[in-house]
Amino acid sequence: MIYLGVDIGGMSIKVGAVDKAGNLLSKVSDVTPLNDPDKAIELIATLCREAVKQADARWEDVQGIGAGAPGTVDGDIVTYATNIGWYGVDFCAKLSAITGVKVAVGNDANCALLAEAKFGAARGYHDVGMVTLGTGVGTAFLAGGTLILGNGGAAGEGGHMRTKSLGNRCSCGRLDCWELYASASALQRRTQAVVGHNPTGIMAKLAKERGKASGRVFFEALNAGDKDAEVQLKEFQQDVVDGLVNIANLFRPQLIVIGGGIAAQPRMIAPLEEMVNSETLGGAGNPHVKVIAATMGNDAGIVGAAVQVM
Amino acid sequence: MIYLGVDIGGMSIKVGAVDKAGNLLSKVSDVTPLNDPDKAIELIATLCREAVKQADARWEDVQGIGAGAPGTVDGDIVTYATNIGWYGVDFCAKLSAITGVKVAVGNDANCALLAEAKFGAARGYHDVGMVTLGTGVGTAFLAGGTLILGNGGAAGEGGHMRTKSLGNRCSCGRLDCWELYASASALQRRTQAVVGHNPTGIMAKLAKERGKASGRVFFEALNAGDKDAEVQLKEFQQDVVDGLVNIANLFRPQLIVIGGGIAAQPRMIAPLEEMVNSETLGGAGNPHVKVIAATMGNDAGIVGAAVQVM
Repeated sequence: MIYLGVDIGGMSIKVGAVDKAGNLLSKVSDVTPLNDPDKAIELIATLCREAVKQADARWEDVQGIGAGAPGTVDGDIVTYATNIGWYGVDFCAKLSAITGVKVAVGNDANCALLAEAKFGAARGYHDVGMVTLGTGVGTAFLAGGTLILGNGGAAGEGGHMRTKSLGNRCSCGRLDCWELYASASALQRRTQAVVGHNPTGIMAKLAKERGKASGRVFFEALNAGDKDAEVQLKEFQQDVVDGLVNIANLFRPQLIVIGGGIAAQPRMIAPLEEMVNSETLGGAGNPHVKVIAATMGNDAGIVGAAVQVM
Repeated sequence: MIYLGVDIGGMSIKVGAVDKAGNLLSKVSDVTPLNDPDKAIELIATLCREAVKQADARWEDVQGIGAGAPGTVDGDIVTYATNIGWYGVDFCAKLSAITGVKVAVGNDANCALLAEAKFGAARGYHDVGMVTLGTGVGTAFLAGGTLILGNGGAAGEGGHMRTKSLGNRCSCGRLDCWELYASASALQRRTQAVVGHNPTGIMAKLAKERGKASGRVFFEALNAGDKDAEVQLKEFQQDVVDGLVNIANLFRPQLIVIGGGIAAQPRMIAPLEEMVNSETLGGAGNPHVKVIAATMGNDAGIVGAAVQVM
């Protein structure tokens, strides 16, 4: 008995065989063919067969295929996924016709949340917010054990909450979206600004060594005791907390799980829970909101996609 | 067959008999006894009997009692309602013991949404946001036909989203909560500011006549063609839209219903739908969000409370 998980990204498509305990038995991938859903679906079918073979399993063992797509998913249809150029793609019917197996599809952020809820940090919780700090800020929500999908599956775009009034324009067209301030990209912009303002500081030195004022440089400087990094970290954490408290007040999850590379940095995550609860409505009179790092790592997308058919 | 709805407010308790079509057959009320839940529950039982009598019905016709409380409700317990001084009140068991009838209780904003969803503006919709512009801003959400309750029933506090970074402190302790800018109180503060800055203008004249720079004065000035009122209305509407778009991006409701006295003003409500959709993520590629005024009026609290036992 195995389940196949398909993680469709803007760069690559990853497919894995997963057992019912959430273990990844195999993993194969290829470059995503853009703007050509039929070609991509053919490739996915091929990768599925390959993943089964590499897991030393037989095709008859496959209980279903679950996929995560980087965009809006309405039932069986990927309605809107700009990075890969899919609009109104009848994904489940097409992949099922090729493979002969039942197929489910969902938004990739929702899949990551499903992975954490079934096998990771959010196991046993039924009111959960997941926030991924990456190029942008992705969000997904479980309320009473059910994913919040919204009309046409378009819910969960918390990165595009307005949390400030500074007049900065987001790529979505709106002013002052949360992801302008709370994404890993925002932390990188802070790093670049410090390098510019303080060319003799630790960060500038590290950026020169690494060839780039990256998030990695930021955390290296922080761990080396850089004062600039301390100041920036506090401000960045408050920017993250602005949106987390909005989420806490709106959804009152038991738990907010933070994903993305920078969530693995303990000094990034540790203070957030106390900061969130000190601002959340009702204080000690209302339920506490836990804030912790995701535990499923890079394979959350594959495993969570497979959870949809478990 | 009748249902009793109980609307517990900070000033008064209102009880009505409601039929299964949502018609209010009778309505009685009394002053809320504060900080004394047992006394309040005794009073509610008395008002229930009175409401049945005034509806020309018999006690045996009562199918259940539903109540809406101004605070956090966790299952059968009102856990936290500061304005009336209730903390951990075992409401349903107590009222049921006195009346011999099954009792349900919920948060009052959720009850108003239930009224709109079953009998009012949101009939037939399953993804709905309700936003009430009053002293503060109240919110409630239906996702896939289910109320979002959150951990311990504490969800739905959208008035305490941060939407700006101006440094104004909310009564909840947080900076720049939406309700500081989008409540009816915020519109009244704008009116007072105009009266102060332009003492010879239409608003100042009307405020003097009415003895108060109220929301009523604002809309009278607006309807009289006052330019100050036009400017303030546009700014205020944008402040309202800031939070509505956050809600649209997070929940993607089919419909946002706006309640509260100022929602009855057509010039207040009419532009909001276009403003919301112009900022919401995905533009024309994603599902449209309708924005309309509530239709259940002042009795939404009673009727929605009763919906809980229908």
